[in-house]
Amino acid sequence: MLNVTDSKIIELYLGKERFSLLNGKVLKFKRTLDMEKGYLLREMIWRSPLGKEVKITLKRLVSLTKRHVMAFQHQIEPLNFSGIITINSSLNGAVDNHMHEEEDPRYSASLGDLGLIVTNKMLENTKAVMVQETLRSKLSLACAMENCLTKGSPFATSNEQTGDSAKVSFQLNGEINKKIVLEKYVAYYTSRDYPVNKLPEMAAGMVEEARLIGFQDLLNEQNKYCQQFWDNSGITVEGDPKTEQGLNFNLFQLMQVAGCNGQTGIPAKGLTSEGYDGHYFWDTEIYMVPVFAALFPEEARKLLEYRFNILHHARSRARELSHKKGALYPWRTIAGEEGSSYFPAGTAQYHINAAIAHAINKYIEMTGDYSFMLDYGAEILFETARLWEDLGDYIPSKGNKFCYNEVTGPDEYTALVNNNCYTNYMAQWHLQYAYETAHFLKQKHPDTYQRLIEKIVLQDKEIEAWREAAENIYIPYDQKLKVHPQDDGFFDKKIWDFSATSADKYPLMLHYHPLVIYRYQVCKQSDMILAQLLLEDNFTLEQKRRDYDYYEPITTHDSSLSPSIFSIVASEIGYFEDAYKFYTMSVRLDLDNLLKDTNYGLHMANMAGSWLCVVKGFAGMRTKGGQLSFNPYCPQNWQGYRFRIIFKGSRLEVSVNSNKVSYKLFEGDKISFFHKGQKIVLDAGREQADCELP
Amino acid sequence: MLNVTDSKIIELYLGKERFSLLNGKVLKFKRTLDMEKGYLLREMIWRSPLGKEVKITLKRLVSLTKRHVMAFQHQIEPLNFSGIITINSSLNGAVDNHMHEEEDPRYSASLGDLGLIVTNKMLENTKAVMVQETLRSKLSLACAMENCLTKGSPFATSNEQTGDSAKVSFQLNGEINKKIVLEKYVAYYTSRDYPVNKLPEMAAGMVEEARLIGFQDLLNEQNKYCQQFWDNSGITVEGDPKTEQGLNFNLFQLMQVAGCNGQTGIPAKGLTSEGYDGHYFWDTEIYMVPVFAALFPEEARKLLEYRFNILHHARSRARELSHKKGALYPWRTIAGEEGSSYFPAGTAQYHINAAIAHAINKYIEMTGDYSFMLDYGAEILFETARLWEDLGDYIPSKGNKFCYNEVTGPDEYTALVNNNCYTNYMAQWHLQYAYETAHFLKQKHPDTYQRLIEKIVLQDKEIEAWREAAENIYIPYDQKLKVHPQDDGFFDKKIWDFSATSADKYPLMLHYHPLVIYRYQVCKQSDMILAQLLLEDNFTLEQKRRDYDYYEPITTHDSSLSPSIFSIVASEIGYFEDAYKFYTMSVRLDLDNLLKDTNYGLHMANMAGSWLCVVKGFAGMRTKGGQLSFNPYCPQNWQGYRFRIIFKGSRLEVSVNSNKVSYKLFEGDKISFFHKGQKIVLDAGREQADCELP
Repeated sequence: MLNVTDSKIIELYLGKERFSLLNGKVLKFKRTLDMEKGYLLREMIWRSPLGKEVKITLKRLVSLTKRHVMAFQHQIEPLNFSGIITINSSLNGAVDNHMHEEEDPRYSASLGDLGLIVTNKMLENTKAVMVQETLRSKLSLACAMENCLTKGSPFATSNEQTGDSAKVSFQLNGEINKKIVLEKYVAYYTSRDYPVNKLPEMAAGMVEEARLIGFQDLLNEQNKYCQQFWDNSGITVEGDPKTEQGLNFNLFQLMQVAGCNGQTGIPAKGLTSEGYDGHYFWDTEIYMVPVFAALFPEEARKLLEYRFNILHHARSRARELSHKKGALYPWRTIAGEEGSSYFPAGTAQYHINAAIAHAINKYIEMTGDYSFMLDYGAEILFETARLWEDLGDYIPSKGNKFCYNEVTGPDEYTALVNNNCYTNYMAQWHLQYAYETAHFLKQKHPDTYQRLIEKIVLQDKEIEAWREAAENIYIPYDQKLKVHPQDDGFFDKKIWDFSATSADKYPLMLHYHPLVIYRYQVCKQSDMILAQLLLEDNFTLEQKRRDYDYYEPITTHDSSLSPSIFSIVASEIGYFEDAYKFYTMSVRLDLDNLLKDTNYGLHMANMAGSWLCVVKGFAGMRTKGGQLSFNPYCPQNWQGYRFRIIFKGSRLEVSVNSNKVSYKLFEGDKISFFHKGQKIVLDAGREQADCELP
Repeated sequence: MLNVTDSKIIELYLGKERFSLLNGKVLKFKRTLDMEKGYLLREMIWRSPLGKEVKITLKRLVSLTKRHVMAFQHQIEPLNFSGIITINSSLNGAVDNHMHEEEDPRYSASLGDLGLIVTNKMLENTKAVMVQETLRSKLSLACAMENCLTKGSPFATSNEQTGDSAKVSFQLNGEINKKIVLEKYVAYYTSRDYPVNKLPEMAAGMVEEARLIGFQDLLNEQNKYCQQFWDNSGITVEGDPKTEQGLNFNLFQLMQVAGCNGQTGIPAKGLTSEGYDGHYFWDTEIYMVPVFAALFPEEARKLLEYRFNILHHARSRARELSHKKGALYPWRTIAGEEGSSYFPAGTAQYHINAAIAHAINKYIEMTGDYSFMLDYGAEILFETARLWEDLGDYIPSKGNKFCYNEVTGPDEYTALVNNNCYTNYMAQWHLQYAYETAHFLKQKHPDTYQRLIEKIVLQDKEIEAWREAAENIYIPYDQKLKVHPQDDGFFDKKIWDFSATSADKYPLMLHYHPLVIYRYQVCKQSDMILAQLLLEDNFTLEQKRRDYDYYEPITTHDSSLSPSIFSIVASEIGYFEDAYKFYTMSVRLDLDNLLKDTNYGLHMANMAGSWLCVVKGFAGMRTKGGQLSFNPYCPQNWQGYRFRIIFKGSRLEVSVNSNKVSYKLFEGDKISFFHKGQKIVLDAGREQADCELP
């Protein structure tokens, strides 16, 4: 993951003294992420080593409407002096990667000298453009800046280029209690979107456009965009302001990272740091797509279109793994190629194919957008189903059941096992869904179907083989315990000795060699609990409770993906205390840096998971077979909560308190859904329904 | 694996034409490895592009008696011209690693610029010394050369240093039919053996000593050494000259590589090329130590002393893997640290501990040298037994049997399995042997025992736990097939489709991703067959045949370690055709480049294995409980064969033909052994026994 040109650099000199929080005295410092308006604010009063006091107010925004633009506003007010003030605004192309202090398998090594190379620079008055290129893939990036002093008159303006940087300097005579305001506009353009030779002028043109709009109007525009977002997606909790803040912080981060372009996914850490090298994983589909489908369907669709756009890579990967047919999505990737180096906890996680199929299904159920299936989804679905069919075998010693050997489930604390229960259940669902979709398309969309089967040379007998495999899939089950073993050999291992493991030994993966962890019954996150959430109809409530009772004590939650799933399932099976406990482990995980690794970046999937804790967990929202339903309750220490979702184009507000649920249609003509099994229809004649809670 | 200073370079110019086999015309070329005398001979007649003909005779030896010395003799005879001849003799310190054309998991990438650095050079008349150093570990190496024209008088002698090289030049007036002879003496010294500051003078002194001895006397000394070796170890086959040559070539290579210093092991490829990075593996103990124990006991002992000398690393490695006690030997190493990067087919091969214990046992049985046990062996044995005790667990779902989960056996075509049958059998044997040894030492060598248990803080209850674990070890067995599954899940996999696998797809590991190979019943080499050889008493003949019949068809022999083991076991169970077939796969594997990878180096373990095919296979030699026994037969297409071994200090010659075996004591006072169960004693009164074969 390469860092782009750093455009945030603005240096301030009071006479010859450089402003720095590390020198002098900080009399006031306040940093505010204004989620309502969408900008970052820093307010400081600083006394220099020589005693000059200055008030500094910095605003920064990354535009959500003009996706190429960043804007800065720096207000500088001398409080007790007059004299020369120098402001330097720079672009720096020599950006290192973060150095990781400790070895950590979740993060990659520094790139060393493999950063971006400056290939072109332009500097004119207060404007600069820098073009940089990646070493190997030769992708280009242009970054432009424009700097305007909107208050204050410089007696000297200069500029300078050195090596990998460009600098614009203003010198002014600062006056006591008189504000100086610098506005800086930055734009980024890359050769992935535009022709290389156009990049500098496009970036330069965009900063000019931004300058003409001005910082305040950019901020107003941002404000408006955010207002709309919070109207549609904001969540309210009465009686629990800390977790309410956590939920909305998480939503804000998800909103910010949505690329909406069909060419990119969402990295595990969003764009917030370098953990996991900016790679996209299955958690996009399992955690984030369901949230976007309910709040921001366009992004959900674009994320799935991205998977379609890398389908050719997934086909090649399947060939590399000796599958004559089908597609295998990479465990971790950006451009589409497999990026995992340790395949037992990478490529062996074949379940990523099912995660993508499942997200397609959930997206369509929530939005009703079957055109996605026709345009993209069916091809993904069929190609990935082919892989499941090719990967498995009818095994004599397993009663000729269809088995998957040497795979790894989501819980990476075991690897390369036979019949990972999650994988087998998901493959079964996937094969069945592909089979049903093929038949549905054949009948209802014969032209689309015909084009598709010709394109991918799909035969009827293959489709039949999917059904047959799905029917015969082997599901490991322990008749004595009446619990699903995570895989064939899982119950043949000893349970990890948790009583002998001190708190500082977690996460286990940082303190024990995989060969140690693999030898025990211990889960980083639980496969089985996730299967029960995703394929809820496959399990009775009693079965869910037994599996939960078995796996909960042996799960360390060393993965941030774990707590939200436990919370949702706990809500469903009536373990309300657990549901709330795991919700709190999820909702402020980054705000409170619970895993002590937020410096490597935010845990995007968990952020989505925390919203799911409320909506799928507390409110029991489901979209079974295209039918929306709720089964809400109010956590004991809450007075109430309210959220909105968009279902098939209609927006519904759900307000829950301890004895009542109100459903309100506030956008769209009509919506029908189930409340605890009872059908409710809202339309122009009845925009709200109130239901008592027992 | 770093290449030392190249001292082999001798250039020849006829006038201005440089001798090269790539130019001009080669009228005669013959290369002979004279194994009897121990030197390499090249005889050439070459016609230069301008028509000058020259006869060149090159002899080269690496002294087996003066371990620091190499010597060269170059004879040059102008056949049809007189004129200026120039001879340049060089040392070159800039030695690259071989570049590997194809990606191959068995070989590592090139080291790039990580070669040796020249730190010091001296050049005086015809002598040069070069000192080089490794980049990271700062090991030093000095290489000296001395050059003498013993026939021919140069009219000019010069020398030159440039960068990483040193050169000595002679210019002569060559005369038709008059021989010119250059003798070059080279010596290497390293800081592992001597103080850094002494290295240059030691190397210089040694080439001076070699020069005084002279090439011919060095060759005579070499000849004498080799004669002794062949007298003791040579093997004769009547009626099969090609495999006889193969056997003796293999013995010659083993003899050459024996370091006899206790500080080094034998790399997988010996010192012949860069495959496997010069690392030592378990095959030293399982394949080579038994051969050395029977032919060259001092080297067998030194190889085991090397393991003792790295025991502290093995202890550290065990701690890294969370074992509170005991030692885990590295899967691949030179200095003692684990060098494997892909641990599922590296560190997970815990069976290396048992291989070392087994070799200690075999060495003592063959030599009677129990002092090794007292001085070194017991400490290794107990520390490694501790690891087996700590690694396993009593597993309720396996009837509370003692199980080993998530280990990898010798067959790397499966990895990370539960209860690898080979591993469990070997661990059982190892624990029992450690238990018995502890009791034996306690009674017979109480002082040694006391010192040792104090040193390693060994408690009686630990020793008791070894016995208990050994008694309770879980052995996977399929009651229906009456065959041992290779591991718990092995029979739950489909058998590899060999009929659909064309010959060019072998070795499978170069053509299929491990995830594909791991999914099938297919063996690179068979664990079970090896267990039957090493622990022969654990299996009835019928069981051995059933297991052999099961595993032989699913073994690809993609590992050079495989055929010899199959051959020996086939001999034992009466599958004589198979025994001979697998023997031929082993015996000329490198001479005929059967695996097409001899360019990466000789397969040292297989070379030892081919001798075992004859001695343990055809002649049925065993050393059970310190008793030597034979059960010989003569392969059908052989008239006979003869070999010698040394057993407890007495040397025995065994001659077998189709109807008779002769045993002859030719060194030592007395030897007793069993022939097909019948006890035979040879001594001064009866030096030979002849036994009829049915």
